[in-house]
Amino acid sequence: MGEFELIDRFFKRPVQRNALGVGDDCALLAPAQGMQLAVSCDMLVEGRHFFPDVNPFTLGHKALAVNLSDLAACGARPLAFTLALALPRADAAWLEPFSRGLLALADAHGCELVGGDTTRGPRTICITVFGEVPAGQALLRSGARAGDDLWVSGTLGDARIALEVLRGTLQAPAAVFDAARVRLEQPTPRVGLGQALRGLATAAIDVSDGLLGDLGHILRQSGVGATVETVLAMELIAYGGHSTGAAGQLSAEVQLECVLAGGDDYELAFTAPAAQRAAVQAAAAEAGTRVTRIGRIEAEPGLRLVDAQGAPLQRRYASFDHFA
Amino acid sequence: MGEFELIDRFFKRPVQRNALGVGDDCALLAPAQGMQLAVSCDMLVEGRHFFPDVNPFTLGHKALAVNLSDLAACGARPLAFTLALALPRADAAWLEPFSRGLLALADAHGCELVGGDTTRGPRTICITVFGEVPAGQALLRSGARAGDDLWVSGTLGDARIALEVLRGTLQAPAAVFDAARVRLEQPTPRVGLGQALRGLATAAIDVSDGLLGDLGHILRQSGVGATVETVLAMELIAYGGHSTGAAGQLSAEVQLECVLAGGDDYELAFTAPAAQRAAVQAAAAEAGTRVTRIGRIEAEPGLRLVDAQGAPLQRRYASFDHFA
Repeated sequence: MGEFELIDRFFKRPVQRNALGVGDDCALLAPAQGMQLAVSCDMLVEGRHFFPDVNPFTLGHKALAVNLSDLAACGARPLAFTLALALPRADAAWLEPFSRGLLALADAHGCELVGGDTTRGPRTICITVFGEVPAGQALLRSGARAGDDLWVSGTLGDARIALEVLRGTLQAPAAVFDAARVRLEQPTPRVGLGQALRGLATAAIDVSDGLLGDLGHILRQSGVGATVETVLAMELIAYGGHSTGAAGQLSAEVQLECVLAGGDDYELAFTAPAAQRAAVQAAAAEAGTRVTRIGRIEAEPGLRLVDAQGAPLQRRYASFDHFA
Repeated sequence: MGEFELIDRFFKRPVQRNALGVGDDCALLAPAQGMQLAVSCDMLVEGRHFFPDVNPFTLGHKALAVNLSDLAACGARPLAFTLALALPRADAAWLEPFSRGLLALADAHGCELVGGDTTRGPRTICITVFGEVPAGQALLRSGARAGDDLWVSGTLGDARIALEVLRGTLQAPAAVFDAARVRLEQPTPRVGLGQALRGLATAAIDVSDGLLGDLGHILRQSGVGATVETVLAMELIAYGGHSTGAAGQLSAEVQLECVLAGGDDYELAFTAPAAQRAAVQAAAAEAGTRVTRIGRIEAEPGLRLVDAQGAPLQRRYASFDHFA
């Protein structure tokens, strides 16, 4: 199977929004009038971001999901994406489920594959995604203000629990692992919530490297600090949204670490004025996504963790850094 | 050096056109009214597209140049790009010249780095580039008509000669090799010519996999055929534009093969009505790029090569296919 047959067979679809199909030198896109184009780019490398034996269908899903999550964090509506793919060989048994998982998520969000590149090399997936957002209305990292509530969508830590079980460093009941694994391998980008938060949230980011690290970007870029209540944060762990009553199998310390610094969650962390608390809950309900208030933004720089009694926790959590 | 220091140190620049700098979840772009956004994406893999010991400065140049060449083939003006970079380690001695070569070419074309991703992995560079083109005026592959002239910009084959010398399969005088190597490692995207050809060329493509193979895309997508005169095509070889008189060192057969199927040229192959011959020459002169007429488009499908006497050549040339 050659390069062009590979593209035709697995990635060519009827043209929708894009002025050209896959296969000219460039794709052509025209955002509607008054819209800005939001652009984000992520690269996934075998052995680093996914195991060599991961299910190709879920990998296709995840490769696009992590990019859609960036659009969600900007409040943008998905439009289109490009895919660059390096593969050791043109392997139909891998490409078929990979493209199916990728395009199923793309179709669910009306996000069209408009171009890309295929080449031989160590298995690497690079997706650049395009969304549109009304000019001036994108959610940024820089808008958090003292007094704002600090919110997180969905659940945190499940992906890390699944990863540690796969690595053999943690044990969990089968039901917990199965649910957590879905969260690791098929994260749900909060695309609807991101759009619903336009005009409400003052700042937003998607949680990919761990909550505290990603929250740090909001704090630095907004010039503020925050206090996170660990009791509230612990409400974020739910083993894929299914409460199993098996929490006792993992120590509270491990659970808290997975929530605060787990990574690979693809939830939204965002800030909104306390006066908008009901509006945030209403927007989340409309988007069908649970949101949890875990703390508040403060003028004093830095990130503080406090326990149920309001006493500070000293423990430090590392954020994921690809070169640390 | 961590991931964020790496980005700050080598890739962060003052924000220009982009609504946001590098470092939010998405970059925001707004093409001017009446403009379409042209998007292209290329991935370069170490050992496949470049030698591990290649000069990082020229690699930075080439990584962007091959993408700008796709914009040129659409007649688009460069606006911005994203960069995803996998590296075995955060190596300042490599990153410094790489980013310098990359950003020098970006600056020369007013093309702003607006986002990206960095990760640990086998050295891989994925760039997605954005340009703008007036709605409906993009040069496509599908517009060639019987009777059109077939043109090629600049020179062809030099890059392949340099590659074969580096591989040890070909010998060439030092002056020839030095000039050819510049063409291999620092190709010149024909960005000005592409824009000058809007409204003149009926179809265009950039020559990256070899002239005959890339020309085949125009023919298939336009539903036409072509005859190429090998005597005219031989005018395209020039060892980097410097005639050395050393052509005798390489057989005519090798030279013709490098011209017709060399690859890595990043010249434009395009078609235009014969009545526009003078206008094409004038546009090329204005863009400062030589163009050579090498044949004509015909209604009969297929690609025919003829010698000086108009007799058909039977030889077949393979186009570069990453999975063949």
